[in-house]
Amino acid sequence: MAEERTEISSLGEFGLIEYLTKNFEIQNVSTVESIGDDCAVIDHFGKQTVVTSDLLLEGVHFDLMYTPLKHLGYKSIVVNLSDVYAMKAIPTQVTVNIGITNRFSVEALSEFYEGVYAACKKYEVDLVGGDTSASQKGFVISVTALGEVAPDKFVKRNTAQKGDLICVSGDLGAAFLGLTILEREKRIYLESPQLQPDLEGEDYIVSRILKPEARHDIVDFFDKEGITPTSMMDVSDGLSSEIMHICKDSNVGCRIYEDKLPIDEQTRAAAMKFALDPTVCALDGGEDYELLFTLQQEDYDKITLNEEISVIGYVTDLEEGCKLISRGGNLHDIKPQGWNAFGS
Amino acid sequence: MAEERTEISSLGEFGLIEYLTKNFEIQNVSTVESIGDDCAVIDHFGKQTVVTSDLLLEGVHFDLMYTPLKHLGYKSIVVNLSDVYAMKAIPTQVTVNIGITNRFSVEALSEFYEGVYAACKKYEVDLVGGDTSASQKGFVISVTALGEVAPDKFVKRNTAQKGDLICVSGDLGAAFLGLTILEREKRIYLESPQLQPDLEGEDYIVSRILKPEARHDIVDFFDKEGITPTSMMDVSDGLSSEIMHICKDSNVGCRIYEDKLPIDEQTRAAAMKFALDPTVCALDGGEDYELLFTLQQEDYDKITLNEEISVIGYVTDLEEGCKLISRGGNLHDIKPQGWNAFGS
Repeated sequence: MAEERTEISSLGEFGLIEYLTKNFEIQNVSTVESIGDDCAVIDHFGKQTVVTSDLLLEGVHFDLMYTPLKHLGYKSIVVNLSDVYAMKAIPTQVTVNIGITNRFSVEALSEFYEGVYAACKKYEVDLVGGDTSASQKGFVISVTALGEVAPDKFVKRNTAQKGDLICVSGDLGAAFLGLTILEREKRIYLESPQLQPDLEGEDYIVSRILKPEARHDIVDFFDKEGITPTSMMDVSDGLSSEIMHICKDSNVGCRIYEDKLPIDEQTRAAAMKFALDPTVCALDGGEDYELLFTLQQEDYDKITLNEEISVIGYVTDLEEGCKLISRGGNLHDIKPQGWNAFGS
Repeated sequence: MAEERTEISSLGEFGLIEYLTKNFEIQNVSTVESIGDDCAVIDHFGKQTVVTSDLLLEGVHFDLMYTPLKHLGYKSIVVNLSDVYAMKAIPTQVTVNIGITNRFSVEALSEFYEGVYAACKKYEVDLVGGDTSASQKGFVISVTALGEVAPDKFVKRNTAQKGDLICVSGDLGAAFLGLTILEREKRIYLESPQLQPDLEGEDYIVSRILKPEARHDIVDFFDKEGITPTSMMDVSDGLSSEIMHICKDSNVGCRIYEDKLPIDEQTRAAAMKFALDPTVCALDGGEDYELLFTLQQEDYDKITLNEEISVIGYVTDLEEGCKLISRGGNLHDIKPQGWNAFGS
């Protein structure tokens, strides 16, 4: 198959950035100056700016063997926007830095940027800067997202109060099982390259790991309904890890009901296939990019009609610890099993 | 020698960030919320925000064999602040993402953050976020800097006008020769590990590569004297590359006088030692982090007393091209020889 392949050296660094970003149109009036100077310039008069930044490294955060570059570009943006929404802020600008080895062609990078572009368009954010570097090994991606929020209207993670309801958007554990399936298909492929991947009936869980979305809709819903969560963060490392963050930072405890955890049918079926406990996948899987938040009880009526929000527990005194109430009614300690890349 | 070595896994990701950043004190009133949530929150009411971001990769941008981690932390911040000053803006916040392999101990990372801290303190910026990831190979650093500027008072690179003076701060070429010396000492060490490095009389040029400074003083001077450059950028890739940027983006040409290029005595001596032309080092060396800017001629009197500023040429019509006027009076085309990591 004779795919087109343009060597990056044929464009040079600045030509490359120009080539990759030439189709980006500005979507935010706050974007005064975009790509092409030492810095971008942003107006946020009368608003506060939020900023967040994430590094994605090949072999650690993604595997190019089963991650299409376009999806990867999309996801690189989305995971940062998710952090902005988790402050109850609206994302407005992103910068993208990439480090690449010679094995990448201009076409491959264009695919990556198509994904970046698709995410920027969908979430109405502007790509305002970034640089490309050579990398000795592996694809390196660093994204920074800026957003805006009315003064002091952002929501932190250290402000949950005893008696608050604990809620989560969407469903949990799907991304982890999608990853498990992709890893299985990779092993099969490496052993028997003639076999075709078998992802039938698993499109939802696979899409959750390859092309996650950020919960703009939930933040919009809060605004429409006049809801201010008492605390909020996004679920990137896993529910148990995140709820422990909120509890530790807020000096409170919690009770989570196992039977209230939102788990999709595909997630349950895949968990069964791999002999995994769906509850553990939901608690510890990570990469869900759902919003975990606490609400005052009087806001309960406002959320009952939103099918995308599940009440999964409540906030207690610090002394009562962080516990899962199992289907059988037993109490189990919640432990942060999320991402720990430095563990043994 | 029994150096202390604490494994990173003993702290975990969140413990690590907490440990590394616990001594950072907020220096800017615009920093509303700092490290510890999904995003930092920043107030820039009545100002515009500038944002810039850079990736530094081991083996490409730095060599840990001769780069102390503390210097590296310092430099990672400074190179981003330099981009902020190049907009005539004042840096206020930074985020730092790092990817590290297991060979790094907590003590090593603490040294890196000591450098980050020293730069933040010196330039009065706040570290407001960042994350640490595992890396499969090499140390990965990505820094984003935010700054503020009065509305529409920033200076771009595409606004130079025919007749403007071309100026540069400080001196050029030193960092390149500092790097050349460190590379020589590395080769010597690899061949004969018992030999001690010989850097006598070369402290200035070595400090220029290992611990550069950003030209806050020049931006302060502009403010004090009421000077607004017609265009500006920082010299990271090399003077010829940067002047070509300004000329291309502004649709103008230029004349640069070889005998006006500011070159330090140590730079000249080192160039001689390596049989290199000091002019070429000044034009193409890069990593100087000086400010290159153009000025209206009527501002000339305001800068004559500042010894840190050299007038090196003037802006011409586009048709006249970009030329160096040699000591002998000959015209040579200026070509961007700066950093091109993708070249062959």
